[in-house]
Amino acid sequence: MTSPATPVRIALVGSGRIGQVHAATVHRSEGAVLQVVADPFIAGAESVVSRFGGRATTDALEAITADDVDAVVVASPTSTHVDLIAACLDAGKPVLCEKPIDLDIARVDGLRARAAAASVPVALGFNRRFDPHFAELHRRVQAGEIGPLEQLTIVSRDPAPAPEDYIKVSGGIFRDMTIHDFDTARWFVPDVVAVTAVGLNQFSDVIAQHDDYDGAVVTLVGAGGQSVTITNSRHCAAGYDQRLEATGPLGTLSVGNVTDTLVRSSTGASGDSGAPFQNFFLERYARAYSAELESFLTAVRGGELTGPGFEDGRAALVLADAAGVSAREGRTVRVDLSA
Amino acid sequence: MTSPATPVRIALVGSGRIGQVHAATVHRSEGAVLQVVADPFIAGAESVVSRFGGRATTDALEAITADDVDAVVVASPTSTHVDLIAACLDAGKPVLCEKPIDLDIARVDGLRARAAAASVPVALGFNRRFDPHFAELHRRVQAGEIGPLEQLTIVSRDPAPAPEDYIKVSGGIFRDMTIHDFDTARWFVPDVVAVTAVGLNQFSDVIAQHDDYDGAVVTLVGAGGQSVTITNSRHCAAGYDQRLEATGPLGTLSVGNVTDTLVRSSTGASGDSGAPFQNFFLERYARAYSAELESFLTAVRGGELTGPGFEDGRAALVLADAAGVSAREGRTVRVDLSA
Amino acid sequence: MTSPATPVRIALVGSGRIGQVHAATVHRSEGAVLQVVADPFIAGAESVVSRFGGRATTDALEAITADDVDAVVVASPTSTHVDLIAACLDAGKPVLCEKPIDLDIARVDGLRARAAAASVPVALGFNRRFDPHFAELHRRVQAGEIGPLEQLTIVSRDPAPAPEDYIKVSGGIFRDMTIHDFDTARWFVPDVVAVTAVGLNQFSDVIAQHDDYDGAVVTLVGAGGQSVTITNSRHCAAGYDQRLEATGPLGTLSVGNVTDTLVRSSTGASGDSGAPFQNFFLERYARAYSAELESFLTAVRGGELTGPGFEDGRAALVLADAAGVSAREGRTVRVDLSA
Amino acid sequence: MTSPATPVRIALVGSGRIGQVHAATVHRSEGAVLQVVADPFIAGAESVVSRFGGRATTDALEAITADDVDAVVVASPTSTHVDLIAACLDAGKPVLCEKPIDLDIARVDGLRARAAAASVPVALGFNRRFDPHFAELHRRVQAGEIGPLEQLTIVSRDPAPAPEDYIKVSGGIFRDMTIHDFDTARWFVPDVVAVTAVGLNQFSDVIAQHDDYDGAVVTLVGAGGQSVTITNSRHCAAGYDQRLEATGPLGTLSVGNVTDTLVRSSTGASGDSGAPFQNFFLERYARAYSAELESFLTAVRGGELTGPGFEDGRAALVLADAAGVSAREGRTVRVDLSA
Repeated sequence: MTSPATPVRIALVGSGRIGQVHAATVHRSEGAVLQVVADPFIAGAESVVSRFGGRATTDALEAITADDVDAVVVASPTSTHVDLIAACLDAGKPVLCEKPIDLDIARVDGLRARAAAASVPVALGFNRRFDPHFAELHRRVQAGEIGPLEQLTIVSRDPAPAPEDYIKVSGGIFRDMTIHDFDTARWFVPDVVAVTAVGLNQFSDVIAQHDDYDGAVVTLVGAGGQSVTITNSRHCAAGYDQRLEATGPLGTLSVGNVTDTLVRSSTGASGDSGAPFQNFFLERYARAYSAELESFLTAVRGGELTGPGFEDGRAALVLADAAGVSAREGRTVRVDLSA
Repeated sequence: MTSPATPVRIALVGSGRIGQVHAATVHRSEGAVLQVVADPFIAGAESVVSRFGGRATTDALEAITADDVDAVVVASPTSTHVDLIAACLDAGKPVLCEKPIDLDIARVDGLRARAAAASVPVALGFNRRFDPHFAELHRRVQAGEIGPLEQLTIVSRDPAPAPEDYIKVSGGIFRDMTIHDFDTARWFVPDVVAVTAVGLNQFSDVIAQHDDYDGAVVTLVGAGGQSVTITNSRHCAAGYDQRLEATGPLGTLSVGNVTDTLVRSSTGASGDSGAPFQNFFLERYARAYSAELESFLTAVRGGELTGPGFEDGRAALVLADAAGVSAREGRTVRVDLSA
Repeated sequence: MTSPATPVRIALVGSGRIGQVHAATVHRSEGAVLQVVADPFIAGAESVVSRFGGRATTDALEAITADDVDAVVVASPTSTHVDLIAACLDAGKPVLCEKPIDLDIARVDGLRARAAAASVPVALGFNRRFDPHFAELHRRVQAGEIGPLEQLTIVSRDPAPAPEDYIKVSGGIFRDMTIHDFDTARWFVPDVVAVTAVGLNQFSDVIAQHDDYDGAVVTLVGAGGQSVTITNSRHCAAGYDQRLEATGPLGTLSVGNVTDTLVRSSTGASGDSGAPFQNFFLERYARAYSAELESFLTAVRGGELTGPGFEDGRAALVLADAAGVSAREGRTVRVDLSA
Repeated sequence: MTSPATPVRIALVGSGRIGQVHAATVHRSEGAVLQVVADPFIAGAESVVSRFGGRATTDALEAITADDVDAVVVASPTSTHVDLIAACLDAGKPVLCEKPIDLDIARVDGLRARAAAASVPVALGFNRRFDPHFAELHRRVQAGEIGPLEQLTIVSRDPAPAPEDYIKVSGGIFRDMTIHDFDTARWFVPDVVAVTAVGLNQFSDVIAQHDDYDGAVVTLVGAGGQSVTITNSRHCAAGYDQRLEATGPLGTLSVGNVTDTLVRSSTGASGDSGAPFQNFFLERYARAYSAELESFLTAVRGGELTGPGFEDGRAALVLADAAGVSAREGRTVRVDLSA
């Protein structure tokens, strides 16, 4: 659509926290320019354009269909994602949509055939696939360094629970938080066939009151017999705990937590002490957002969409729903992601 | 029974690999002396006494009941454990028995009442409770350093599968290998109420042919809502992978793998590289066997039995059986360890 | 001179490797714009402006004095630095000059009074002060975390020797390589009073033929009795070895080497292995160049020059010369940096 | 002299702190037995024999010459070492003597010819050569893993200064503390040719009042151009700081500090924190004392003396004296250890 020399003109829908991250990322990119920012809360859109360029509008549809817009980044509330993706497909505009596609698999399935038939890329914002450390681990697994993957271990703990207002509408831990880990799992083991989940209520009465879990342990099994173990918690004293470990017959590859500084100390209390983990996803995945955008831009320019797409977004939701059933009913749930 | 100044006179039943470990441990202890070694394979017993002292016999009962024997260490095949413990109880001799008590819960339960009523200590050889690193982690959890325990993660991978002859009679991965992890779990969370297990067949046709798993992921839940996740494999490229991690609201405590040497290297291939893990349990738990014996000797001399006892051996087997059911039937199995 | 909202217009003198780094850094900065690039090799200048903007010229003086230039970055050969700084002072233009000021202390001293009297900032490009990890260590030492600094240890090894053509004109290891470490030393211990240096010829006949050392160990002593130990080598198998360690009565703070990826592996050969060190200064100090520019821009806008200035550049050269005398004559050389 | 099956009968001279270590080590060894302990303070000797066997005497000479004594361990005050070694040579008894041989090189040289001509082994108690981690590093350097050694770095910091009464008679930091590091240096680089030392007075008025240093940095150069850098301090917040690092063209091998436990924690204050270093030499070198004894026993039984001997003890003292001259006079001192 555009040559490398011509920056891709981006319409950003949503100017909240994650929208601002995307705006800054577009601004820093040599291959993209922020053309328009849409938000019904116009002051938010205006604040973003004052920092990163472009024009502000309250009308997402106008932004998506504008002639001077080449591609769309959707960072609005989850409930709007399906309609906005549909509008992008209508307008023939490539779209990078934040996860999840929707909390309701029926709505996702309603869009599925059109997404599959689309002539433009539909990219899903699963940021972890773009983290340089996780991506390097993935590359080395794919290269055969550990032989065929046997066991994958994902630890993901948030630093602190979201506010109650968010918990209420989050769709529950599996669809809101574990969904990232389901996608990470499928990055390594696309063909998950069984989901066994245990939901935990360990510390938060508020979360329990909303019939949600504040922690979880999920075991997936792949068609090839691989296991994936996911450990989640809604809190973690040392920060955002994000670890990945892949084991095969030839060895194990792992990525531990990231700290802002490499300074270590030795004192009477500890012979070797490092910094806390980076606080949360904005810090931990800062570099991932750039890589995610660049990957999308490659697809916009006609290259292959190598990152997660609509089907990946759907599959993660299917696994999340299966985990919910498994945890509630105390049984392994078998899934067929190709169905 | 004996004063600290008088070494406890030990009868050792079994002179195989683990029996030799116990013989050497007794020899090194200032508080014990090897009095007699019993093995139907008399050459084995004779070899042990030639190195570590005492007399050899083919008759375990004679050894247990001998007047010059104060306490018994049972390191014979699993199938003999129940009868030998019973003989020790008959003789009023304290006994330290290797795990497991038996592969058949019915046989264990047949001895349960007598063990509970015994006037002498019955100690079970779950070596991990005596590893100084794991024990220090446990001590710090008990001391409240991380607040109430929420999530415990156990990784346990053998360096390589046992020979087929052993696999056949092992009782299966849960009763043979995971049983250690079940005991470790109960060390932190005694009152396990639910077991969810996934059995894996990832690499060994031999193991699969014996209807056994070569890997497993087990999730336990405690009465207090704590989770314990156990990851097992029958092989591991870097050695005997033995890790433990405990998380609570105030932080995480962990113990990684142990290496023989602390030498690290930096080269063109790696900026920081350490030794492989210690190879297997004889190396990894060498120090644990000494602590296990000293703990037993304290109980023999009338002190409290602080290590695992008969009920712990039984509980681990109950969890192993529950895991087998869970894996086969694809459902969470609830257990009542007090029943 | 300029408001935060108005980017500082930069003239860059020199379009070689380090000049290109500065050009890219200016391009990425929100507070600066590349206005002109001067290089007698015009194709080099043109290549830089084609990527990062501005106009190209062969005439450094024209660039420095141009009305549309607010500040100057000097990245030309060392021998031109003194004249270019002088030209900037004549033109009343703030200047950020790559290290060293010159290889000849007499030429540096010839400019010293004018630099001291200058109304514009003269910043020296000692990149390590701007490395976020080293800067954090420095901040924590200044904050008193380890009490008064007693011993500072600097390890600095290049991945491989420079080509012979460079070695010939480098001024020798102390003025070319250790000069960075002398500045790092003075960042922590400004008032060095004694220099004891040992020059080494360990592996390079080429370097020895030019009467230069391929390694060195230098011990500095500060007026407060602090020691600084610098270990240098012109080669290192694992990459660019850059470490810093500060010890005081309350503890030690250290920064180890940086790797591109956090992926670690365990295999039969190593239980824990990480990536090689980042290759060389362009990678290792990539973030430092940005911080260095931002610090300079703050001073250009009228803020304090918090980074190294002319006197720091001179002091490092004085220490380098003293190290040369010490190594040749086998004696401690006392210095007075305030003289 | 004795077959492997017959334990070597040891006379121990000295029952202080280090004497007790040797007594316990002999007791634990399968190849040695404690026969007699000599100390003019008879209660000390009696206390040791009550724990580890043997008889007590006040007469060192009687112990050394006793018919039932095969070999001697000297752990008495430094001033007695020369005479006791001489007595052992007179009696034809192998001797393992604690470092240093003496504080006065003239007294050492007075014994030198006799020691060189002795038909029995004279072993020196430089414990670090027997530390399993340092020994493994040494073995790998000798095996060529890093190519020819170029730079060796030794860090040695005591946890806290010795009491003033000891400082007074210690012979100064170089002969008391650095002497260990000089021996470690010579283990890797036997033929040291130049010593450059900087003495420091950083924190202790008491030490300064005794014209001694509380810290030091020493650079040695070997005949092959290798450098050895030693950093000493008489205090260290995190414990006994004992590190070793060897660099050659193919890489670096290092040993860091040892901790009692491998438990690590992550909290809000630190994402990764380990235990303090082991406190002091009794803990840090506990395993080394056993290896040192076993090495001596091998030589007693007619094997080669692979550990440090009389000449090594002398060479370390020569380097210590040279360091004293270098520090006082501010110049490099050349040495000829073969003279």
